[in-house]
Amino acid sequence: MVHAAMQQIKPAADDDLSRAFSESCRHLRSDSMNEGMVAVANAGSSSLKFSLYRSQGEVLAPVLRGVVEEIDTAPRFVARDPAGRVLAQREWGSGETLGHDAALRHVIGVVRELMPGIALRGIGHRVVHGGMDFAQPVRITPEVVSRLEALSPLAPLHQPSNLAAVRLAFDLLPGVPQVACFDTAFHRSNSELAQMFALPMSLYDAGVRRYGFHGLSYEYIATRLPVVAPMLAQGRVIALHLGNGASLCALQGGRSIASTMGFTALDGLPMGTRCGNIDPGVLLYLMNERGMDARAIEQLLYRESGLLGVSGVSSDMRVLLASEAPRARLAVDLFVHRIVREIGSLAAALGGLDGLVFTAGIGEHAAEIRRRVGAGVAWMGLAIDEEANAAGGPCISTAASHCSAWVIPTDEELMIARHTVGTLSNTPT
Amino acid sequence: MVHAAMQQIKPAADDDLSRAFSESCRHLRSDSMNEGMVAVANAGSSSLKFSLYRSQGEVLAPVLRGVVEEIDTAPRFVARDPAGRVLAQREWGSGETLGHDAALRHVIGVVRELMPGIALRGIGHRVVHGGMDFAQPVRITPEVVSRLEALSPLAPLHQPSNLAAVRLAFDLLPGVPQVACFDTAFHRSNSELAQMFALPMSLYDAGVRRYGFHGLSYEYIATRLPVVAPMLAQGRVIALHLGNGASLCALQGGRSIASTMGFTALDGLPMGTRCGNIDPGVLLYLMNERGMDARAIEQLLYRESGLLGVSGVSSDMRVLLASEAPRARLAVDLFVHRIVREIGSLAAALGGLDGLVFTAGIGEHAAEIRRRVGAGVAWMGLAIDEEANAAGGPCISTAASHCSAWVIPTDEELMIARHTVGTLSNTPT
Repeated sequence: MVHAAMQQIKPAADDDLSRAFSESCRHLRSDSMNEGMVAVANAGSSSLKFSLYRSQGEVLAPVLRGVVEEIDTAPRFVARDPAGRVLAQREWGSGETLGHDAALRHVIGVVRELMPGIALRGIGHRVVHGGMDFAQPVRITPEVVSRLEALSPLAPLHQPSNLAAVRLAFDLLPGVPQVACFDTAFHRSNSELAQMFALPMSLYDAGVRRYGFHGLSYEYIATRLPVVAPMLAQGRVIALHLGNGASLCALQGGRSIASTMGFTALDGLPMGTRCGNIDPGVLLYLMNERGMDARAIEQLLYRESGLLGVSGVSSDMRVLLASEAPRARLAVDLFVHRIVREIGSLAAALGGLDGLVFTAGIGEHAAEIRRRVGAGVAWMGLAIDEEANAAGGPCISTAASHCSAWVIPTDEELMIARHTVGTLSNTPT
Repeated sequence: MVHAAMQQIKPAADDDLSRAFSESCRHLRSDSMNEGMVAVANAGSSSLKFSLYRSQGEVLAPVLRGVVEEIDTAPRFVARDPAGRVLAQREWGSGETLGHDAALRHVIGVVRELMPGIALRGIGHRVVHGGMDFAQPVRITPEVVSRLEALSPLAPLHQPSNLAAVRLAFDLLPGVPQVACFDTAFHRSNSELAQMFALPMSLYDAGVRRYGFHGLSYEYIATRLPVVAPMLAQGRVIALHLGNGASLCALQGGRSIASTMGFTALDGLPMGTRCGNIDPGVLLYLMNERGMDARAIEQLLYRESGLLGVSGVSSDMRVLLASEAPRARLAVDLFVHRIVREIGSLAAALGGLDGLVFTAGIGEHAAEIRRRVGAGVAWMGLAIDEEANAAGGPCISTAASHCSAWVIPTDEELMIARHTVGTLSNTPT
């Protein structure tokens, strides 16, 4: 079945484009030790995203990017070049169960067909949880894998998928070094107080603490700030990663000092389908009065809450912003309200605010959300420039504004590719 | 057993004082319809607090105040006059189980002995939960009792005790009208957004929302502000009720617009033994990985967390402030940190900050906590006057401070007495 799938691979999109692309990749075969391709893998429970970068020393150039989605329900694959043109695609049809193994084999087959004989220098994996210990990316050894497996209870919905991809890559691409890059690592600079819940210390010592997530996105933003907004880079900044998952991060001089996400990716802001911050007493009520078990509560809080739960319509901000339905509006209002409140809380952690940075799907593309968040932060001296905001920035505050606001597209894959090159350069091969 | 207890009543403290007190109360027998005594009852799971006020029209003067503590473990009773002098006391000894019924009978017996023939105009009860409907105090009828019983699942640790006292008072003092005063009612002026979790709307409609608590305390503060700090009363104020339970409330022109407590009294700030705000994922972890059921989690979050859990020493702020132990300091640091963060969040809800009001045990008496919270709010222009703060206020900010800070002692019992008189004046007898 897997072999059948691999034999069927044909760049289905534009054969001329694919041929030209293969031709343009021919020189990649003769890379020196310090050159080559770096792959980035981001494996979720139902999807496998991947991208390839050509590395020449410190310089990383994107080569292609792709995804296999709905791996076990209605698998479909697409790979595109950096200009967004389709190089290869395939659909398996609804009801097919592809599995991560076959999905990764498919991706490898396509890449080998498009770029025959490429030298893969390393694979960087996005791994959601690095726990208390991993404050940096790490080259993956069997010992690292078992330490990361021990963290699965802290992120049961994501960590196992991430590690399954690591194991598969070791099997299918033996000898290619692999690096784990963590969503939590960037926040390990947070103070003990910012990481603590007011629970017995035995739980804190056992790892029940605020880890924070979206760290690769915030780290990327921190590397872009000195370029895009040099005056702001050393200041007190709140970065807003607003996508299907959403959080805020307080940056002081480019270091994370606090964020809205906690022990899991449930906490903080309302998200597409996740509840964000709720009273722990709600869970006791659901158990005691509604007879719900952990599995049912997990389903409710991870999949049926957030923008979807409030609106009853969609988890997609684009749909909600286009809707006239009162509950769709209410969901958007609540999203903005909670962001404004959490900005207040993080500004208190920073002792003031010099600027905001909007990023990720909603942050980069929903001018209406940026405008409304900006209005909610007017009390701290922010004035949004309506025209600049509508145009997408990068600077979207007025010249007279006491604190500034920016739109900076994030690039977690590039951050992972950089970490992969950096980590492999610093560890013996 | 109950009758034996009642026969043993002797004001054990100072017989001369008790006699003089009884003499001074003699005129109370001849009260007109518009005068008389108002009783206030605050029944917890292990204690029964009560107080008596003499009402003359709108004027309420405290007459006595008392408590039966550790009702089912080591019962002890004391009643004092407004100057704090002991009028009556008793101890039953460790291991005795008195029960709320006998405790209330004891209180009634003592009051009848101290003030023979008094006319009780009404009893006001503190009731923790008024749900979505009760935005005002209400005269208690059998129908009201059953509506309040239906709210017990929302406050399982407090509501049943409150209602047990109501039923007992109907039995023991038939014909005396009773009024329920709610900890939640004052917050019903909050916007829908401030009351919502990002959960499916069916749960919101079923009552899973942020109610807020300590409302009688905040309402009292709101009535004192025009007297103590008239310039501030119409402004944007954050009131800090910092006691064994702790919360913050954002007041705009004396009305509650948001608070840190949510669906239950667990949410928001860390408290003596309660956790405050935690990631809902922590509860899923405790269920999935530690095999804890609702009862065990309730015990952990209500009784073993907060200042006690972090310090490992005490839930009492006085003990922690006097301790050199690193974890005691950590607990205090976390308390202050979380207050400062939540002030930021509530200031965002208010769109700025004109002043803070500290109240309740810690708020009124712990100058060190006020000083440190003040320092954490310096970024919003607050400057604490160290001397005024050490002296206990009422104003504890400097003349040059951009926003002001105050200490105003709270009096929830007086608020309940006022509501009782007001409610009975407005409803047919």
